[in-house]
Parts: sequence; structure tokens; C-alpha cells
Amino acid sequence: MTLREEALHMHRVHKGKLETVSKVPVQNAKDLSLAYSPGVAEPCKEIYDKPETVYDYTMKGNMVAVVSDGTAVLGLGNIGPEAALPVMEGKALLFKSFAGVDAFPICLKTTDVEKIIETVKLLEPTFGGVNLEDIAAPNCFVIEERLKKETNIPVFHDDQHGTAIVTVAGLVNALRIVGKTMSEIKVVASGAGAAGIAIIKLLYNYGVRDIIMCDSKGAIFEGRKYGMNDVKDQVAQVTNRSKVEGPLEEVIKGADVFIGVSVAGALSSDMIASMNTDPIIFAMANPDPEIMPELAKAAGAKVVGTGRSDFPNQVNNVLAFPGIFRGALDVRATHINEKMKVAAVEAIAGLIKEEELHPDYVIPAAFDERVAPEVAAAVAKAAMETGVARRKVDPEDVKKKTRRLAIIGKSEE
Amino acid sequence: MTLREEALHMHRVHKGKLETVSKVPVQNAKDLSLAYSPGVAEPCKEIYDKPETVYDYTMKGNMVAVVSDGTAVLGLGNIGPEAALPVMEGKALLFKSFAGVDAFPICLKTTDVEKIIETVKLLEPTFGGVNLEDIAAPNCFVIEERLKKETNIPVFHDDQHGTAIVTVAGLVNALRIVGKTMSEIKVVASGAGAAGIAIIKLLYNYGVRDIIMCDSKGAIFEGRKYGMNDVKDQVAQVTNRSKVEGPLEEVIKGADVFIGVSVAGALSSDMIASMNTDPIIFAMANPDPEIMPELAKAAGAKVVGTGRSDFPNQVNNVLAFPGIFRGALDVRATHINEKMKVAAVEAIAGLIKEEELHPDYVIPAAFDERVAPEVAAAVAKAAMETGVARRKVDPEDVKKKTRRLAIIGKSEE
Repeated sequence: MTLREEALHMHRVHKGKLETVSKVPVQNAKDLSLAYSPGVAEPCKEIYDKPETVYDYTMKGNMVAVVSDGTAVLGLGNIGPEAALPVMEGKALLFKSFAGVDAFPICLKTTDVEKIIETVKLLEPTFGGVNLEDIAAPNCFVIEERLKKETNIPVFHDDQHGTAIVTVAGLVNALRIVGKTMSEIKVVASGAGAAGIAIIKLLYNYGVRDIIMCDSKGAIFEGRKYGMNDVKDQVAQVTNRSKVEGPLEEVIKGADVFIGVSVAGALSSDMIASMNTDPIIFAMANPDPEIMPELAKAAGAKVVGTGRSDFPNQVNNVLAFPGIFRGALDVRATHINEKMKVAAVEAIAGLIKEEELHPDYVIPAAFDERVAPEVAAAVAKAAMETGVARRKVDPEDVKKKTRRLAIIGKSEE
Repeated sequence: MTLREEALHMHRVHKGKLETVSKVPVQNAKDLSLAYSPGVAEPCKEIYDKPETVYDYTMKGNMVAVVSDGTAVLGLGNIGPEAALPVMEGKALLFKSFAGVDAFPICLKTTDVEKIIETVKLLEPTFGGVNLEDIAAPNCFVIEERLKKETNIPVFHDDQHGTAIVTVAGLVNALRIVGKTMSEIKVVASGAGAAGIAIIKLLYNYGVRDIIMCDSKGAIFEGRKYGMNDVKDQVAQVTNRSKVEGPLEEVIKGADVFIGVSVAGALSSDMIASMNTDPIIFAMANPDPEIMPELAKAAGAKVVGTGRSDFPNQVNNVLAFPGIFRGALDVRATHINEKMKVAAVEAIAGLIKEEELHPDYVIPAAFDERVAPEVAAAVAKAAMETGVARRKVDPEDVKKKTRRLAIIGKSEE
């Protein structure tokens, strides 16, 4: 069977991928008298009296909503909420498999920003966190910002921050190899979508000051009169302070790092040759990168990462989001803030020891069983240190628990 | 431990009762290439091209939303959406245990009718059906009616129809015992909430014409000037055509059947003594019935049913909703209509054979493993016959499947 046939067969045979299952025995009248009437009235009364005990007596504290409107699904684009459902079910499986986080797909029949915000707010009692997924820019920015302000549970748009965290972790290690620091490098990014903008923001928080972001119309700069929007206006406030104008092939000259979240073929060998010494290339367009790794290497690239599992240094969100939510949920965090994201970056990057570092190994493998536990512990610690945790836990306990819950690591082929 | 302690302990140890679990292997990169990227794009594309295949490739076709605003939870009243969550998780377990239906709690942070309707409509892509639960009257009537019109999936308010179906099934059998027919009996109901009104409606569809419904102010009649609302106005259009006025103790004289969905103590021995020969009493107030069964019997009641598991003839919704949704989902029904409800009544009543019939056995036991399969098959058949099924199935297959999926029946203590 082809991959297509095999994937369709698997989805059809099982009728999707996710089911709901009881964590408690439901075998006889005694069981039901505890799990349902009349015993269930007791946790209800407790929660009514002490609202925070909803985390003790219900699924809420371990349940994440995977929310999508189906407008930017994989490389498929705006395919709608029904067609997006297989992806959201898949995402839910990853949450569970990598970090023991329960997750449930919420595919919404609207693309209206206000309706999406309102709906998620109304769903808040049921969920301990919200993972926004495959929502097109610029709506995804507005929805995330508003929900962060208007709810008391962590809201995280994975297409932005998951990608940003793993990319920056790769960059941290790549810079160790080439002996450069964040504050001295020049970064040029191609693609002003959700992921690109989140990477730029995180790099800025990491001390990178020389950044130029390009969209299909070339470098974005303050005062540009064409193809701008609110988010690009914000980007223009903090990047490209010299207001350089021109296409990617011009502005990339002398750059130390290329960040590609655009389209296949956007980066040429000549462009790489025009960069500074030891150029670092993250070419993450899907399914085909901005330039193929072998070509990039031949043109002088020192480190190359892509979004693909069949090349070294895969930028795979699964390194980030399961551990991030595990850590956030375990401390009952109200938010996932910048410090928690940085903690995740450091945890992922730090897993590769000095002696293991290699241009083909700056990012841990997707199935590295150490990743989610390290990320979870680091994120929980950062949440407690920054005052967004509603309870204290020992990060070592978070690590051990995550290791225990992650059923997938050991069976890496 | 007391029941209270045991229930709290169980909920706390497991952190609620429901988890999300993968139906497919997720052990290695090959598994994930089918369940997630890149293989998952194939079912997405299929659904985009042929929307109805969402039932083939996703969880939707077996997933019911258990929706509540927490305004009328058990006997606890308006305790809010967080405190209602343990009940909705429990309900989800019952769906799964009794009929293999996946279900997920949706506890909404609003009591606004329009917002609840809008939210459920926006959630439609994710779910194959909607079970409304513990929403106070009269909002529950409006929400259900509107959602039935404005969605293409079955919407069923269990507190109304589940209770009505099981009560009427019990009445069908009770009438066999006393040798009366639906068209000749006089029914008096106490309590004009969601369940009471649904019972009245279903009885009307069953040919009962002499019905008087009482609320706390006495008999409801057309033109009554006090304590009316839209739904009671509708009730007054089809019941109590003689416009009898007066308290329950007056209007119950000569009645054949008492239906209590009100409060403990509402029915006295004297009232039963004033009824017609062989009175039938369904005293379903929770946790304490309108009259205790032994008192009712002593006063002359021929058949007594309650809501409690420690007395004979328990009116337990679990006899209805799992099989009803199983049957509706299996034929991909767009609605649960009156014929499907009647089919459920007949399936439940019909399980008790002539020779088994007894005043203390007019309703099957909650754990009778034959119930859900019979109900599912009957409901699927009725859906196909009334044109609300989107696909044909053999009811015998539905029966066998339900029997296979229901894991609970055999382990009845």
C-alpha cells in the first residue's frame, strides 16, 4: 500500500483516532453510585464551595482543548473545520503519548475572530489549557492575545510558539558550534506568517537585535507603504532599524542566520554564498524546504535544519508542546509566558551535551524520551518563578511523572 | 468510609473520571506518519472533497457532546458549570459503558440561551450528536427546539426525554397488569419542569387524552392567570380540557395514574385512596420520592415506580440514552424524532415478557444487558423508517454491535 492508502485505511478502520475512556471502574451498581448518582454529588458540592477544587476532582486539570477553525491546516490551507478534524485528533494523540496530557479536538464552524474568542471563553470550565492550532494569520495573533487576557488558563498557539521554541533551541546550539552570540548575529527571515513572526519575537527576547524579516514583497521596514498589516507594523518597529529596502537576495548579504518559513525554492545557493562565514540555515517550508540540505551545505552552510524527519535537525513542534503543557498544567499555570518559553528553549538545547554537538545534531530527535520530561520540569519551574503558577510542585517530580506518563519514548524504532 | 468520603476519594485519586485515549498505535515514527504528518493529510483531503466522509475518517460519528450550563444539576440546582463537570464526566462514562458511545463533557460558562445555542452550533463539526444535560426549564426547551432546527445532528435533552421514555415504558407495562388502555386512563402529573412536560407530551403522542398537570399552584388550565409561562401555556392547550381548577388533592380524585416529578411528600395516602381502582404511581422526586413505595402500596397503589435503585421499578435514564444515541449514530440520524422515542419505549417495555410481568417488575433493571442493544436496534430501525437516517444498517447488526461494545452488562453484581 502507498502511504496514502495506508493512512486512509487506518483512519477508516478505526473511525478516527481518539476515544474517551473511563479512568475509574464502571462495572456494577456500586461503581456507578460513586462515579455517578448519588456519589457524584459530593465532588459537585465541594467544587461549588471551593471553586479551585475543580482541579482536584475533575478531568479539567489534565485536559487541553485543541482548537482550530481549519483555515491553515498543514500545507493544505483553508480546508474547513470538518476536514481539519483528523489533524486535531492526531495532535491530541501526541499530547497524550508524549506527556500524558489529555487533549480533545474542538473544530469550530466559524472563522470569525470574535466568535472563536467567545466560544473558547465559554468552554473554559471544561479545560485546563487551550492549544490553538492551524488558525490562519493574522487572526491567530488576535485570538491568542485576547484569550490570554480574557481567560485564566494557558493559551498557546503552537504553530507560532512551538515552532519558535524548537527553532531557537536549534539556533542556540548552532551558535555554540560556530562560536557566535545572539547579540552579534544578523538574522534574515523569509515568511511573515504565524511561525515567522513568533520566531522573530523570541529571538528579540533572546537579545538578537539585527533582524530583517522578508515577505513576498521583500524586506519589511518601518514606513513601508505596501503589503503591511498590524502585525507587520509591529515587526517593523523592532526589526530592520536601518530601514533597508529590497528583496531577500539583497538583504541576506552578510547575514549569519537564515530562518525560512515560506516556500520551497525561496533560498538559492548564491544567496547562501553571499552570507557571513559559517552561515546557519533553518529552511522549514513544508513539505519541501526553501533549499534542500545538500545544496545548502554545498553552498557553504555550516548548520542546516528543516521541518522534515528525513534530514538532520528536524524542527518538530512535538519537542515543545507536550512538555510545555505538562509543566504548565502541573503547576496550574494561568499563562504560558515568555520566561516559560525560554525555559523550554534551554531545556531542549541543553539536552545535547558539548561533546555530542555536531552540525547535524543541534536539535534532539523527535522521539528522544528525555525531551518532554526536561521541558515539563523547566517550564513548571519558570512558571513558579514568574508568579503564574497556582500551586507549587517539585520540578523533579514533574520530570519523573512526565517520564512515567510518556509511553512513546522507549519504543523508538 | 462513608459514601461521601469514598466518592471524594475516588474523584481525587483519579483526578476526575474521563481521559482521551488513542485508538491507533502511536509507538514510533511510522505510526505517527500515518496518524499525524504527513499521512493525516490524506483523510483531510478526502473530507474536504466529500464532506460526508468525516463520518468515515474521524471520531465524529461516535462522539456525543454532553452539554450543560450547570443550572439544574441533579438535586443540587444551579451550581454552575465547574461544579457540574463531575456529573457530565459521569454521564460520558455511562454512554461509553452501556453502548460504546464516546462522549465528552462541554460545561459552558454562560446561562444565556442564545450563547448556548450559538456555541453548540459552532461545535457541530466535532460531534455526531448532542446530549443536553441539567439545563433548567424553560431554557432547556428553547435550546433543544432551536438546536434541532439549526443543526444536522441529533440533539436530545435527556432530562426531558430519557425520563419520559423510561416512565412511559413502565406505564405501558403497568397498564398491561391492571388491564387498562392509554386512551381510557386519566393521568395526573405533579411538577411542570422539564421531565414532567416531556412525559405529558409523550403520553399525548401515545393516545392519552385525559391529563391534568399540576404545578405548585395546582392544576394548570387554559386561561389560568397565575404562574404561567410559554411552556405551561402549551401544556394548557392539550391537557385539562375541562379546565378543572384546584390543588393536586382535588384533581387527583378518580385518576388512574400519578406521575410525580416534583418534591418529596407531594403525594399522600389519602390522595392515593381517592384515585380510581388499581392506581399506578410513578413517584420520581429525587432523592426522596413524592411518597415512599411501602406507604403507597398500603394506600392501595397497584404499581409503584421511583427514581431510586433501592426500590422496584427504577425509572433510570440509563435504560434509554445509551441505546438511543447508539442507534441514532449508527444510521447517522439527523434527528431523534418522536417515532424513535416511541421505538425506545416499546423496546424497553417489550423486554419484560407476559409471564414475567409483576407489579414490582414493570421496568427492566438498570444493568439488564439486553436493554441498550434492543433500544439501539429499535431506534435505528425507526430512524430509517422515518427518513432521518443518512445511511442504512441492519438493525440486527446494530444489536450485535451494541452488545459487543457494552462492557458493563455481564458484570452486574
